[in-house]
Amino acid sequence: MTNFVPTPSIPAPDIVRCAYMEIVVTDLAKSRAFYVDLLGLHVTEEDENNIYLRSLEEFIHHNLVLRKGPIAAVAAFAYRVKSPAEVDAAEAYYKELGCRTERRKEGFTKGIGDSVRVEDPLGFPYEFFYDVEHVERLTQRYDLYSAGELVRLDHFNQVTPDVPRGRKYLEDLGFRVSEDIQDSDGVTYAAWMHRKQTVHDTALTGGNGPRMHHIAFATHEKHNIIQICDKMGALRISDRIERGPGRHGVSNAFYLYILDPDGHRIEIYTQDYYTGDPDNPTITWDVHDNQRRDWWGNPVVPSWYTEASLVLDLDGNPQPVIEREEKSEMAVTVGADGFSYTRKDGNPDGDRTGFKLGAQL
Amino acid sequence: MTNFVPTPSIPAPDIVRCAYMEIVVTDLAKSRAFYVDLLGLHVTEEDENNIYLRSLEEFIHHNLVLRKGPIAAVAAFAYRVKSPAEVDAAEAYYKELGCRTERRKEGFTKGIGDSVRVEDPLGFPYEFFYDVEHVERLTQRYDLYSAGELVRLDHFNQVTPDVPRGRKYLEDLGFRVSEDIQDSDGVTYAAWMHRKQTVHDTALTGGNGPRMHHIAFATHEKHNIIQICDKMGALRISDRIERGPGRHGVSNAFYLYILDPDGHRIEIYTQDYYTGDPDNPTITWDVHDNQRRDWWGNPVVPSWYTEASLVLDLDGNPQPVIEREEKSEMAVTVGADGFSYTRKDGNPDGDRTGFKLGAQL
Amino acid sequence: MTNFVPTPSIPAPDIVRCAYMEIVVTDLAKSRAFYVDLLGLHVTEEDENNIYLRSLEEFIHHNLVLRKGPIAAVAAFAYRVKSPAEVDAAEAYYKELGCRTERRKEGFTKGIGDSVRVEDPLGFPYEFFYDVEHVERLTQRYDLYSAGELVRLDHFNQVTPDVPRGRKYLEDLGFRVSEDIQDSDGVTYAAWMHRKQTVHDTALTGGNGPRMHHIAFATHEKHNIIQICDKMGALRISDRIERGPGRHGVSNAFYLYILDPDGHRIEIYTQDYYTGDPDNPTITWDVHDNQRRDWWGNPVVPSWYTEASLVLDLDGNPQPVIEREEKSEMAVTVGADGFSYTRKDGNPDGDRTGFKLGAQL
Amino acid sequence: MTNFVPTPSIPAPDIVRCAYMEIVVTDLAKSRAFYVDLLGLHVTEEDENNIYLRSLEEFIHHNLVLRKGPIAAVAAFAYRVKSPAEVDAAEAYYKELGCRTERRKEGFTKGIGDSVRVEDPLGFPYEFFYDVEHVERLTQRYDLYSAGELVRLDHFNQVTPDVPRGRKYLEDLGFRVSEDIQDSDGVTYAAWMHRKQTVHDTALTGGNGPRMHHIAFATHEKHNIIQICDKMGALRISDRIERGPGRHGVSNAFYLYILDPDGHRIEIYTQDYYTGDPDNPTITWDVHDNQRRDWWGNPVVPSWYTEASLVLDLDGNPQPVIEREEKSEMAVTVGADGFSYTRKDGNPDGDRTGFKLGAQL
Repeated sequence: MTNFVPTPSIPAPDIVRCAYMEIVVTDLAKSRAFYVDLLGLHVTEEDENNIYLRSLEEFIHHNLVLRKGPIAAVAAFAYRVKSPAEVDAAEAYYKELGCRTERRKEGFTKGIGDSVRVEDPLGFPYEFFYDVEHVERLTQRYDLYSAGELVRLDHFNQVTPDVPRGRKYLEDLGFRVSEDIQDSDGVTYAAWMHRKQTVHDTALTGGNGPRMHHIAFATHEKHNIIQICDKMGALRISDRIERGPGRHGVSNAFYLYILDPDGHRIEIYTQDYYTGDPDNPTITWDVHDNQRRDWWGNPVVPSWYTEASLVLDLDGNPQPVIEREEKSEMAVTVGADGFSYTRKDGNPDGDRTGFKLGAQL
Repeated sequence: MTNFVPTPSIPAPDIVRCAYMEIVVTDLAKSRAFYVDLLGLHVTEEDENNIYLRSLEEFIHHNLVLRKGPIAAVAAFAYRVKSPAEVDAAEAYYKELGCRTERRKEGFTKGIGDSVRVEDPLGFPYEFFYDVEHVERLTQRYDLYSAGELVRLDHFNQVTPDVPRGRKYLEDLGFRVSEDIQDSDGVTYAAWMHRKQTVHDTALTGGNGPRMHHIAFATHEKHNIIQICDKMGALRISDRIERGPGRHGVSNAFYLYILDPDGHRIEIYTQDYYTGDPDNPTITWDVHDNQRRDWWGNPVVPSWYTEASLVLDLDGNPQPVIEREEKSEMAVTVGADGFSYTRKDGNPDGDRTGFKLGAQL
Repeated sequence: MTNFVPTPSIPAPDIVRCAYMEIVVTDLAKSRAFYVDLLGLHVTEEDENNIYLRSLEEFIHHNLVLRKGPIAAVAAFAYRVKSPAEVDAAEAYYKELGCRTERRKEGFTKGIGDSVRVEDPLGFPYEFFYDVEHVERLTQRYDLYSAGELVRLDHFNQVTPDVPRGRKYLEDLGFRVSEDIQDSDGVTYAAWMHRKQTVHDTALTGGNGPRMHHIAFATHEKHNIIQICDKMGALRISDRIERGPGRHGVSNAFYLYILDPDGHRIEIYTQDYYTGDPDNPTITWDVHDNQRRDWWGNPVVPSWYTEASLVLDLDGNPQPVIEREEKSEMAVTVGADGFSYTRKDGNPDGDRTGFKLGAQL
Repeated sequence: MTNFVPTPSIPAPDIVRCAYMEIVVTDLAKSRAFYVDLLGLHVTEEDENNIYLRSLEEFIHHNLVLRKGPIAAVAAFAYRVKSPAEVDAAEAYYKELGCRTERRKEGFTKGIGDSVRVEDPLGFPYEFFYDVEHVERLTQRYDLYSAGELVRLDHFNQVTPDVPRGRKYLEDLGFRVSEDIQDSDGVTYAAWMHRKQTVHDTALTGGNGPRMHHIAFATHEKHNIIQICDKMGALRISDRIERGPGRHGVSNAFYLYILDPDGHRIEIYTQDYYTGDPDNPTITWDVHDNQRRDWWGNPVVPSWYTEASLVLDLDGNPQPVIEREEKSEMAVTVGADGFSYTRKDGNPDGDRTGFKLGAQL
C-alpha cells in the first residue's frame, strides 16, 4: 500500500534531541506579546526581524526562533546531534536518500554553528547541528521564575498523510516508537517517537501534510499549566485556548493546547515518563478508546484535527499539502456516538481486567 | 412579575453554614464504591440502609447521608444554626411563612439532635439543627490522606424556576449575595449566596425546579482535583466526569463536576475567596460573557444545564417540578455563536480596560 | 498570680478581622525591594515617606503600610469592625478600660476613614475602623499573579509576657481561642485567637513584650511558599529565611518565616482550617510535644523565640519591653534533649492511640 | 596523592541506568511497614525472607529488594546495561581491573536474569544485568496513586574516602560528572555522576567508606514529598525525618531525607534537570557556599555527614570502612561561623553578578 522511504546504506546521524524550531510569524510585535509577555520565554537576542527565545533550563542559544515573514509557516525542525561529525553524517544520509540538502558552516540562525538543512522524504524542513553558542542556564534564577514558567522544549508534532511511511523513515533515522494509535483494521493514526529518554522528540499525526501540528514546552508541575489558562482568561484571550487542560492517555502527560497570533499551535506539557531502557514497551491504543487522547474522556475539538501550520522548503516556499487517503481519526471518533467507548463490552461497571488497554507489555 | 415570598415579621434563624445533605440512592453498594472507594469520604457509621460520611476536616457527625431508597432524590439540605434556640427560631419562622414543618427532638438522622425540617417556599426540604455528635476531626491524620482528599463540605446548589424570588427569600433568611449572572434585560440566571465567609453556602440556578443541582466538597489544592479525574480514568468511568476540570469565572474556584451512580451531581471545588466583610461586593456577570462559568471559555455541556436531582417533601414523595418561564441560560448561550464573547466590542485584542467584567465594586 | 484586665460593662466592638498593620521601616527603598520586588505585594499608592500595599484578593485600600522612620517598629495593629457605629463602641470600650485613645475622623493612614487608635492594656497600639476606600480586587488578575503570590492578610502575632492575661482580655473583646500551648503545670506558652473563620486573627506568644512577633500573609498553595524560598536563594538572601518552610502542628498550616530588612518578621502561611462553628474545639498542645510548632519535628531556631519588633505608643515612642516572668518555651524545649518527645512513653513504635495529642474534642 | 584505579584496555559495559538496590534489613515486618505502608512502594512479590518492591512507573521486576538478615547493610547496587552482551563486557572489565566477580545466569534476585556482581575497586558490591521479568507498569493506575507516590528510582549515593579516585573510576566506566563540590585548595568533597539523562545515577560523597549514603526515589511534584513528611508526623515518627524538605543547590531538586527502621537513608527527590547533551556543563560549587546543599541555606544536620550503611562483599560480609584522609565537608562548614557564606565579599546586599556561583559553563 505504502511506498516506504528506502533505508540508506550508511549510518543515520546520532541525534540527541529536538532542539529548536524556526517559525515565520506575520506580526512580530504580536508574537512577542504571546511568547514573551504571556508565556514568559526568555529572550536571548532580538532584532527587528527575529526574536531568539529559550526556556528556563536551556543552555543552548534558543529553542524557538520567531522570524518575521509574509506567510505564517515553519522554516525548520532542528535537532541537535552528538558531535560535529554527525552533521556530516546527516548530510550524507539525506543525500543518499535523494533529498535536497543545504549546508551552512555559519549556521542558519544566530547562535547555531555548522548545520545542514534538508527537505526530508516527508516534505519537512529538518535541520541537524552540533555547534552552539552557550548561554546562561536559568535553572536556579527563581527571581525570573513566572507562575507559568516553561522549563524545557519537549517535542515537535508533525502532520503527515501516511503515518507508517513516516514512522519507518524515522525509525531508520534512529527514533524509537513509544506509543501509537491504531484500529483493528491495521490503520495507524498517529505515532510517538523519541531519541531522548522521554515519550517523544517528535510525533506523527495522520492528516493532510506536511504540516506542523504543534511544538511543546514542558513545565515543572501541573499548576504551572493551569496558570497559563488563568492568565489567558485574565487577558480575555480565552478563545486562544484550543483544547485542554487535560491528561493525555498517550504519554500520560498533563497538557494544554493554545494558539499563537498566527494560529501556530503550542502545547504545554508536563510529567510523561522515562523511556530510556532498550526494551521500553510500545503502547498501542485503540482509536476507539475515548481516553486515548484525553484520559478523562473530554472530547477533542475538530480544529485540533484539521488545523496545522504550513512548512517551508529550502527556498522558503510553502510545501504543497497532500491529502491523507486513509481514514481520519476525527471521522472515526467524533460525532457518531457508537464509535467511542470508555468501557469494554461486557464490562458495564468499568472494572479493570488485567493490564490497561494497549500492549503495555 | 414575580410573587415574592413575604418577609416574616420575626427574626430569621441565625444560620452558621451548610452542614450536610441527605440523599436517597438506589444501590447502596454502588454509591459506597463511589463516595468511599473513589472519593475517599470517611465513614463515620453505616448500617444496611444508611452510610454516614464526612470530609477530612469535619468535626460533626457527617456531611452526607446516603440512604437507600426506591427513587434517587434529596431528602434534606441541612444547615447548622448558631445555638439550640435558633432551631426554635427556624421553626417559628417557617410557620409564619405558612410552610409545613416537622420537629424532631431526636433528629432525623444519626449523630444529629434536635432538628426541624421544612418544606420551604421554593419547595426544598431544608433542615436546621444545632446539636451534633462530635467525632474525630481528621485534619492531621495524614496517614489517611488520599491523593484526591476532600477536606470540607463547601456548598449546595439548587435549581429553581424564579431566581429573584428565591434570592429574596434567602436574603430574608440572612444569606448575602456574593455573585450573580444577569443579562441586559434584567433577567437573573443564577445567584450565589453565603452565610459562612466563602462565596456560597448555597446557590440558585435558574431552571425547572425544585431540584438539587449539586453538592460541593472542597480540596486543599488543584492537583487533588486532577487526581480525582485521573482516578476516574483509571477506573474507566471517565463518562461520569460531566464537566471540567476548569476555573470558574463566578467564584474563581477551580472545579470539577462528576456524577454518582444515580446521577446526583458532585462538585469538587477549591480556592474561592473571603467574603466576610460587611461590604463584600456583589459581582454581576453578563450571561453572554463566556468566561463567566469557565474562565478559560470552555463550553458548558448541555446536561449540566438540564439534569438535576428530584427533591422530596416531608412525606418522602418527590416534589413536582415546575418549569422555568424566563429565558434559559443554555438557550441564550449555547449553540448560536453570536451570543457568546470573550472580548468586548471594539476591543479586538482583548486588552483589559478598567476593572474586569462584572460590577466588582 | 495575674492581674487580669477588668471586663468592661459595655459591649465590645464587633470586630470583623485583622485588616492591616502599619510598620515603621528605616530604609524605604530596601523595604520596597523586599515587599514589592521579592514578595510581590501590590502597591495601591506611595509617596516619599509611605508605601501602601495590598495582597491580591484584598478590596480595601491596604493590608500593610510601610512608613519611613528612625526606629523600626509597629505603629498599629488595625482591625476592621462591622459598621461605623462599632468605631464608637471601640472608643467607649477602651475608655472604660482606662486606656489612652485617639479618634481621627479622617483616619490615621490614607485610604482609611474614621478610626480610633488605642494603647491597649497589653501595651499594643490597636486600631479599629470601618470606612475604607475600596480598590480593585485583583483576584482574577492572573496577568499579575506571581509564582509566590500573596493572596490575603491572614493574621498578626504579638509577644506578651503574660499569655493568660492577654487571652482573657482578647476573649472579652470577642476573640475565641482555637488552639494553645500549655504544660502540665498549667503554664500557657501561647494562644491563637480568631474573629474571622480561620485559626486566628492574632496570636499571643509568651515572651518579653509588648512586641510584634510577625505578620502573616496567605498563599493559595504550598508551592507558592516554596517559590519564595527559591527566589530568596536566587537573590542570595537565604540568610533572611529564618525558619521553615514546614508544617505547623498548631493550625496545621504550611508555613515560612522570613525577615525584612529591618528584622520585622513575615510569615507566609497556607491551608489552616475552618473555625466558624460556635463549638469549634480548642486544641491544647503539650509544650513538650516537639511536633507542636513543626509537625515534622524540625527544630525552632532560637532567634524565633527571642527576636521581635518594638511597638509604638500613640506619640510614636517605643513601648518599654517588660520581661516574661513565667517559664520560656525556648528554655523548656531547646537544647536539653530530655524535654522533647515525638512519641509518648510506652509507645516506642510511634503507633497512634485514639485521637492525636491535644484536646481535639 | 591518590592511587587512581587503572583504566582497563577493554571497553566499559554500556550502562543504561541505576536499576535496583538490594538491602539487608533486620526486621522484615518493620521494613515492610516503612516501605509499603508509609512510602507506598508496590510489592511485586514477597516471601518470608524477601520483599521485592517497585515504584509506580517501573516496568522491571523491582527497584528495591528487602532481604532479611542479621546485619543491616547493602548487598548490591545494580545497574541495567544495554544488552545481554554488556553483562559479558562488565564481567571482562572488572576481571581486567583485578576485581572479584561472580556470574549467575539465573540472577541473584528473583525477576532478574543473567547478572554479574563484582567487588569494585572502591569496595562496593556492583551488579550489572540486562534480562528482567517485565511487570505491569502502573503509570496510569491512578486508582493506586497515593498522595506521596514514588514514581521512579532516581539514584544511588555512595560514601568513599577518596572522591577523585572514585570519580576517575566511574568516568572510565562511562559516567559523566554533572556537578561537584570543591574548595579553593583543590579538595573535592562530592561528585554527581550520570548515565541516564538526569543529574545522577550515583553520587560520591567524601567520607569513611565504602558505605551507602542513600537511595533516592522520585515523585512527580513537590507536594508529594510534603505529604510524606505530613504522614510521618501523623504516625508520630517525625524523628525519622533526618533532613529537609528543602531545595538542593546541587541538582536543583526538591528533596527530603528519611531513615528506615535500620537507619538506611532514603531520599525523596523531584525536578532536577536534563543532562543528555554531550556538552552538558559540569557545575562546580564552592564548599563554603552555604546554599550548595540547601538552596535556602538551611543547615545540614551532622548525622547526614557521618551516618551511612555498611556494604557487603560477595560472601555477604561487611566491607571494612576506611577513613577519609582529606578534609571533611562537615568539619569545614559546620559550627565555625566564618566558614559559610551566602553572599560574596563586597556584595553585602546579595546582588547577583554575572552567572550564579559555580562554573556553570
